[in-house]
Amino acid sequence: MAEQDVIEGVFLSAAYDLREIFAEALAPHAETIRLRHPHEIDDPETIRFALCWRPADDAFLPYPNLRLASSIAAGVDSIINCPSLPADALVTRVRDEDQGDVMAGFAAWHVVWHHRNMRHHIVHEAKHEWARLISARMKPPRETPVGILGFGLMGRAIARAVTAMGFPVVAAVRNAPRDAMPGVRFESGEGAAGRVAEQAAILINVLPLTAQTRGLLDLDFFNRMPVGAALIQLGRGEHLIEADLLKALDSGRLSSASLDVFDIEPLPAEHPFWADERILVTPHQASDCSPRRMAEQLARAARDVVAGRIPETVVDRANGY
Amino acid sequence: MAEQDVIEGVFLSAAYDLREIFAEALAPHAETIRLRHPHEIDDPETIRFALCWRPADDAFLPYPNLRLASSIAAGVDSIINCPSLPADALVTRVRDEDQGDVMAGFAAWHVVWHHRNMRHHIVHEAKHEWARLISARMKPPRETPVGILGFGLMGRAIARAVTAMGFPVVAAVRNAPRDAMPGVRFESGEGAAGRVAEQAAILINVLPLTAQTRGLLDLDFFNRMPVGAALIQLGRGEHLIEADLLKALDSGRLSSASLDVFDIEPLPAEHPFWADERILVTPHQASDCSPRRMAEQLARAARDVVAGRIPETVVDRANGY
Ligand SMILES: NC(=O)c1ccc[n+]([C@@H]2O[C@H](COP(=O)([O-])OP(=O)(O)OC[C@H]3O[C@@H](n4cnc5c(N)ncnc54)[C@H](OP(=O)(O)O)[C@@H]3O)[C@@H](O)[C@H]2O)c1
Ligand SMILES: NC(=O)c1ccc[n+]([C@@H]2O[C@H](COP(=O)([O-])OP(=O)(O)OC[C@H]3O[C@@H](n4cnc5c(N)ncnc54)[C@H](OP(=O)(O)O)[C@@H]3O)[C@@H](O)[C@H]2O)c1
Repeated sequence: MAEQDVIEGVFLSAAYDLREIFAEALAPHAETIRLRHPHEIDDPETIRFALCWRPADDAFLPYPNLRLASSIAAGVDSIINCPSLPADALVTRVRDEDQGDVMAGFAAWHVVWHHRNMRHHIVHEAKHEWARLISARMKPPRETPVGILGFGLMGRAIARAVTAMGFPVVAAVRNAPRDAMPGVRFESGEGAAGRVAEQAAILINVLPLTAQTRGLLDLDFFNRMPVGAALIQLGRGEHLIEADLLKALDSGRLSSASLDVFDIEPLPAEHPFWADERILVTPHQASDCSPRRMAEQLARAARDVVAGRIPETVVDRANGY
Repeated sequence: MAEQDVIEGVFLSAAYDLREIFAEALAPHAETIRLRHPHEIDDPETIRFALCWRPADDAFLPYPNLRLASSIAAGVDSIINCPSLPADALVTRVRDEDQGDVMAGFAAWHVVWHHRNMRHHIVHEAKHEWARLISARMKPPRETPVGILGFGLMGRAIARAVTAMGFPVVAAVRNAPRDAMPGVRFESGEGAAGRVAEQAAILINVLPLTAQTRGLLDLDFFNRMPVGAALIQLGRGEHLIEADLLKALDSGRLSSASLDVFDIEPLPAEHPFWADERILVTPHQASDCSPRRMAEQLARAARDVVAGRIPETVVDRANGY
């Protein structure tokens, strides 16, 4: 197949109509890649790549020549865990520095939400009440360690923002990075996340979902945190044992939490998290990548794969991220 | 007077009982400084310094030997504008790096509040509604210039936090500083604030209150800002013409505002700002300095003044800050 031919792809999502969402972003790449829905495809052997988000278990089965499965986002867990993913397919993610900035602002916002008890101000504003908090009761940022679980594109961007507000950061990674960042210490290897938890007045989770990280945020984990700590959960719903979070809040071990991701999304209206004033719920809104960036990186990865090159945005399937 | 004698001072505030607020912080300095309320003083010629916050117009009159008027905070406007302040008294402020960090977090929080429309999430959370915003409508931080009026202890700390979240910053100063900060441009001299306004999608005011800055934030000023801009007002209530802010919001020139300081504080319960959903009101809570730091710097300044030295925390009375 000559590199100048249009490369054929398929939308694979059991959750969304990806054509509807990304039509505009994909349009400029029509001479490089063409994507169809499965039901529109009667020549499945021509399909070389898929654009995916939560593909069905058997989604990949019809496509014998598919060699690339690209995520619409930073996370690839739903692709790597798909039972029909061909063993030799490369998996790519989106790498968007703007998304890092957006995530950094969102995470920093929640750090201040908990540090300054901003809910108090929202509640009193609604009642037209001038209600100052006694600031002498607040530890300054310098004395308020922020833990970050995961130090990839997201964790790094968050660390930059949070250290710039004066908070010392301790981050959990698998392997400590070579390049230092002022104000950031690392815990690495086996048990890194738990050791970060022990030190964190405010803990931010931006781990990828892997076999090692699933269910990590449970009662044992919370009980290692300092009394009165806050949790900011921005990774994946499956990281958290939801019932254990409520136990940790009830016991006073945790004082408050921000949750952006959930086991079931959209979070059902009757879920107890919504009405709990200790918890701030947001609708998986921390940071999307730009559709334009996604489409560019998809087209480039498709070209790379048909030419036998490894795309820059490839993830390590063995690691799971 | 020998330097080891206790130096006599007076609390001067028409707003608060400063002894009540600062007793604990002042206690460790009892061998250096002693402070009394005016009605407790029958030897006014012994008084060498005052600890002040909004002193009454005639507050300084009784004290012929007073040479130091210290603010409990960063701002000194209510002291410098006091008609009875002796012409030869030195005025000091508190310089607290922790306060800079706290201010930086608070300002950064409001930047994200406006950039991400976080009010939307608070409103929908209260209704138990999963309501995602379409993130493609949001410009990334990189394309969202943040203006900062004033680049002193507060403005600098804010710039550090906001640039770390990826926002380009343009700051207004009187004289451009020599030391650059990555991601920050300056407008200086006559009309600097207005030129910053023209460029700012989000504008943060942390100017001191002086003859030049009083009433700066008026309708003409707002009309120079980009359509849909947001205002974060953290300086002094007297910087803002309150009615003009409402006009600028009604015309659509401004989309939203955060206000922490007001002409009249506490903001009266019947004030229209409270009920206005475009405005977020907080009770002068952006950042207090630490009482401990205040007391240390007060004791040091008092020692300096009686020994004929200029305290490090002195302000330039001619500049007004
Ligand atoms: N809520 C949202 O809107 C949103 C948006 C974007 C991303 N996310 C979530 O955030 C995750 C991370 O995104 P990213 O772009 O930062 O990913 P990334 O660049 O792949 O970084 C992952 C980081 O996690 C570390 N890590 C992985 N497994 C670990 C373990 N078992 N223990 C300790 N550290 C471990 C990695 O360590 P090494 O550096 O040693 O490899 C790396 O630092 C995504 O997978 C997604 O789930 C959520
Ligand atoms: N809401 C709160 O809780 C809170 C807390 C702390 C402070 N504040 C307010 O914030 C103010 C600033 O505090 P700070 O510690 O940063 O003060 P600062 O260190 O004295 O800095 C003042 C800055 O404003 C600049 N400036 C003064 N007049 C100007 C003018 N006419 N045009 C342009 N720039 C001008 C100065 O420029 P140069 O650098 O050229 O001198 C300097 O950069 C305080 O006075 C107070 O009103 C509020």
